Order: sequence, then structure tokens, then C-alpha cells
Amino acid sequence: MTRVFNFSAGPAVLPEEVLKEAAEEMLDYDVTGMSVMEMSHRSKAFEKIIGDAEQDLRDLLNIPDNYKVLFLQGGASQQFAMVPMNLMKNRVADYLNTGQWAKKAIQEGKIYGKIDVIASSEDKTYTYIPDMKDLKISEDADYVYICHNNTIYGTRFTELPETGDKILVADMSSDFLSEPVDVSKYGLIFAGAQKNVGPAGVVVVIIREDLITDDVLPGTPTMLKYKTQADNKSLYNTPPAYGIYICGKVFKWLKKLGGLEVMKKINEEKAAILYDYLDSSKMFKGTVVKKDRSLMNVPFVTGLEELDKKFTKEAKEAGLVNLEGHRSVGGMRASIYNAMPMEGVKALIAFMKKFEEGNI
Amino acid sequence: MTRVFNFSAGPAVLPEEVLKEAAEEMLDYDVTGMSVMEMSHRSKAFEKIIGDAEQDLRDLLNIPDNYKVLFLQGGASQQFAMVPMNLMKNRVADYLNTGQWAKKAIQEGKIYGKIDVIASSEDKTYTYIPDMKDLKISEDADYVYICHNNTIYGTRFTELPETGDKILVADMSSDFLSEPVDVSKYGLIFAGAQKNVGPAGVVVVIIREDLITDDVLPGTPTMLKYKTQADNKSLYNTPPAYGIYICGKVFKWLKKLGGLEVMKKINEEKAAILYDYLDSSKMFKGTVVKKDRSLMNVPFVTGLEELDKKFTKEAKEAGLVNLEGHRSVGGMRASIYNAMPMEGVKALIAFMKKFEEGNI
Repeated sequence: MTRVFNFSAGPAVLPEEVLKEAAEEMLDYDVTGMSVMEMSHRSKAFEKIIGDAEQDLRDLLNIPDNYKVLFLQGGASQQFAMVPMNLMKNRVADYLNTGQWAKKAIQEGKIYGKIDVIASSEDKTYTYIPDMKDLKISEDADYVYICHNNTIYGTRFTELPETGDKILVADMSSDFLSEPVDVSKYGLIFAGAQKNVGPAGVVVVIIREDLITDDVLPGTPTMLKYKTQADNKSLYNTPPAYGIYICGKVFKWLKKLGGLEVMKKINEEKAAILYDYLDSSKMFKGTVVKKDRSLMNVPFVTGLEELDKKFTKEAKEAGLVNLEGHRSVGGMRASIYNAMPMEGVKALIAFMKKFEEGNI
Repeated sequence: MTRVFNFSAGPAVLPEEVLKEAAEEMLDYDVTGMSVMEMSHRSKAFEKIIGDAEQDLRDLLNIPDNYKVLFLQGGASQQFAMVPMNLMKNRVADYLNTGQWAKKAIQEGKIYGKIDVIASSEDKTYTYIPDMKDLKISEDADYVYICHNNTIYGTRFTELPETGDKILVADMSSDFLSEPVDVSKYGLIFAGAQKNVGPAGVVVVIIREDLITDDVLPGTPTMLKYKTQADNKSLYNTPPAYGIYICGKVFKWLKKLGGLEVMKKINEEKAAILYDYLDSSKMFKGTVVKKDRSLMNVPFVTGLEELDKKFTKEAKEAGLVNLEGHRSVGGMRASIYNAMPMEGVKALIAFMKKFEEGNI
């Protein structure tokens, strides 16, 4: 068995010790005589798994008591509909357009009401976060929506828009648990698990209790009401149990590591050495305005498509895989999520240096 | 490691060799150097996994070419909404009420239109399948809906309602792949994976192509349109990849076993010895009308609540677990899905006999 360094943007690398534990427990979880996959979601064993997962997540993010934690299905894309279906009382919302995923959320929002795009970086292929000094927030907006980290373009919000008394909603799929977050600034945070937290098929929702009501848009499916899921502690129907179990293991791994302050420091160090190299390289260039650079997704180019291809091909042969940029932008992208070890980033930089020397 | 015999109604027992393979491949799937959980859903490796899963399912069920196979999220409960949102053009549909899951589907359908319950067995706690000779199918019904096997009550349809030119929709969650099915009789079949097919978090939909249109109810989320999922081969967004991988392994296991004719024969044999014993026992009684007995879920009672409890407790101590009936009906239930081996059923019967002798 040889493990590669996997720079995939998601589904993405998971901590090796989490996978090892899961493999060991596959046929017999904690002396139950069965796999977590075979376990009733109403069993004591699974109740403990999902209970621990919630508590560990609360501990990690210091989630205030007036917020619920939900483990749902359908990914971020389903949240693009659930958010307006549940929160759009006036049928108006403001969105910041910082990339393809924000844009998809905007399109979905338009099914349900009037969407005002109050800031956008589309003019420069989303290579920066728009200035937020003079945001014109709609008076009757039900919420303001951001995509906190933009996986494809490699940008992130380092400060938040001033939304006053408006609810702030954030898609944190690609930087969830990469650093501490002041949850109280948000009305709702959601994150697809398959980047920083676990396998695809689980989306984590953290929602302020007063936003959980029966007053949803007509035609909202029972499954898509936050109230259904909150009232039933994510067990209205069978949840994605195995995925939740893996997420729970990742939460425990993070706690053991020292929590999100420690994780943040490691992530900053990993990102710093990669960006430093990019800034010094004559061949490779980062594509993002410096102040808005993501700690999680690092896109870069050589400027020559042929050379980009040669690079990703040879990197793959060297065990550094999934370095291709998103099909919509090309170039390269190294996703260096929580579970990517420092040695993986160092191996990447070493390989880039060697490639640069050999291809002048 | 000791495995138990797990009679859970779902999530339920999986073939041991499937779990063993999954454990072995956890850190390195097919020389990719990564787990299936860490793999891009757009990678060649995953494309093969989902492609094989679809083809193997098509082979097993002999699915006609004019049907699409979709691997979705949200379970059967989300299908309760997706079916009307996509198929209810006249806002009228006919449902047969044969249990709690049919009833939930009816309640959900009422969000979207007029539901006629054209047959019901609610009068006798759903212990039989209603007579279907004189079904009054609504003239303008968009479809007729059945729950093919009723997990809680242990009944199943052995023949189908005559629906003429009306679309027949079936929830097959609890008997999917337990025997061959003539797919061409249905417009749409769906099945939550967590009973007979794989882990929770995947629902399989088999839908006739002409039913896949953009003409859905207003307000239908993009994710909940069959057309979105069909056009993107279940990859509109990140699918529940690991669950699909396990389902694919179960499909291969079924093919190796000889396919659904062989599986049916085994299931009939397992059910026959258990029902034969129930019919001969002085202590235990089956609760379902004989002709409608499920091959998958076998509910039974002693008639004394105390004795039921003693039985499930002692059975558990003997490694025969999850024999409690559904919380809404009590008593006992043995779910004997595909992956429950004959030796498990024999062990159960032997234990029941011993218990009966010891508790006269």
C-alpha cells in the first residue's frame, strides 16, 4: 500500500489515522458485532456516535447554546434552496458574488424571490474579494449571503460584511474547521463535509434557534424544513450514518491536535511556505490578490498551458495528485486542507523547484 | 471480533465479504493511493465505480434502456416530495395506504395536490394488503402510488394494482433486489439503500425517461428535479460517493451469487422455515395474513408483553440482535434481508424453540 499526497479540492484527503480506525472497526464497531453501516440509527451505539459528533463540534467551534447543529443530506447545493425556502419571508435577499458556488446559490435563490447582488468580483475572474465599505444592503432583505472560501478561485473573506441586524448566511464548505469562527456573527453556517470534515453525503448546518420556524415558503418539502430536522435532532429519517461517524472521528482528531487555534497555525504555516515559494518563483505564479488568498485552496499557473499539463502529469507520477485547476479556470490548484500534512506541502514545493530548474 | 446475527429493519446487515473488501481498500483503493472517501467524484476511478454500479444494477434487474438509474440523497422521505413535485401535473394522485411509510408519502403528497387514498388496510393495523379488484382510480390522477413491502407490518404486494395507462410509482426500499422485478410495469421505483443494498445516505431511483421533464411544480429546488440528476448522471453535485461504492459491491456480490432468481429462492427458503415454525409454535404467532406475508420482514408476538421483552433480551444475549418490533407496534420482528444468511435464520429458530420449551 502506497499513499499519495492528494491535493484534490473535494472530496479530499482525510487524516490517515481516521481511515485506519474506520478500517479496523468495519466489521465490529465497539464490540457491537456489526459495522456502523449496519446499525440502526435509533440504536444506543449510534445515538452516542451522533451525540459525540455534535458535542465535539460544539467544543471545537465554541458554538453558543442558542444554535442548533444539524447533519443533513444533499450537500451545499441543496442548502442553496433550503436557505431561501426557510429564511426568505420577504422574498428578498442580498448575495455577494465571489465565485461559481456563490453564483449557483444566487441562481437557486432566484427561484424563490428577488436577489440583489450587492458586490461581485466576477469582472476579474473572481481573483479577489470585493470591497465591502459601501455595501448597499436592501432594506427588506431577509438575509445577506456569502461564500466564505472560494474553492475554485482560491479567495477567502478575511473580514465580514457589516450586515447590521440582517442575518448573515455563509457557505463554509471549503474552510470549515480550518480556523476558529465566531459563530455568533452568523445566523446560519453550512458546510459540505467532503472538503475539510469527512466523506461526501453529509452537510453540516449550524443555525440560530430563532430562525428555525414553521413559517417556510409554500411547497417546502418536510425534509427541507430546518424545523423538521432540528425537532428530530437530524433523525427525522435515516441520516447518512456512516458519514456522520467519519465526521465525528475527524472532530476527535482535531480536538486531539489541540483544536482550531492550533489547526489555524498549522494551516497558516502550510499556506505561507507555498505562497512564499510562488512569490519567489520565476515560473509559477499565484492568481489571487495577496490579501484575499485562501489558506485552503492555492491556485497557480505557469502562463503556458502546455507547461501546466506537463507539470501536473509529472507531479502525478511523483505521487502528488489532483493538482489540476478546476475545469472552468485551468492551471493548477493545490488544496491543502486540514488533513494535508506539512510534509505533503513541502514535497510539493520541492517538486515544483525541481520542475522549475529542469524546465527553464 | 465476534459478529452477531443482526435482524435490524434498517440500516441492516451487509454481506460480510463486502465489508471485508471495504476495510481492505480503506487506505488505498485499487492502487490509487487513497480511499474512495478521498476521491474526486470526477476522477476516472470514481467514474468507473458509479458506472459499474449502474451497469450491474441494470443487469440484475434487467432494466429497460428507456429507464434512467439515479443515485440520490435524502432517502425515501425525500422521494415522498420529489415524486409529486416532478410528476403531479394535474395535482391529483392516488395512493394505497398499506402502512406508516405509505401514510407519510400521502401526507407529503398533500402539500402538492389532491391525494385520493383508493385502498387502505389501516382498519386492521396494516396486517394485510387491501383487495384491489375494484380500485377506483381517479380519472385525472397523475400516478398511482404503492409501498411494495411494508417494513413495519411485514406485508408485501404479491400482485400489482391494475393502473391502466396511469403511471405506477413504488417505494421498494425494503424489498429492493430481493427478487426479480418487471421494471417495465412501473413509471418510477425508488429504494433507500439502507435495507437491502448498502449504507444509509443513498436512495436509488429507476425512472422511465418520458417522465423526466422540466415541467415540474413551481418552487422545485434544482437538486430535487429528476431532470437535473438524470442530465448529470447523478453528478450534478458531489454524490454520496462512498455509499454508492458500497452499493456497487453489493450488486457485484448479488451477481456472483447468481442474480435475483437465485436470491429469490434463498429468500423464499429463509422465510419459509421461519413462517413454518411460527405456524407450528404454540408460543409465537405471526401477525400477517398468510398470502400477504413479506419475505423480508417477519413480525411476530407471544401475546404477552413481558414475554416479548424477555425473549428479545435473551436473544440479544445469544447474539441474535435487533429483534424488537417497531416502536409503533411492539412485539418482535425479524428482518431477514438478502445479507442475512440461512444460518442466521436457523439460529433464530433454534433459539425460539429453546425459549418456547423453557417458558411454557
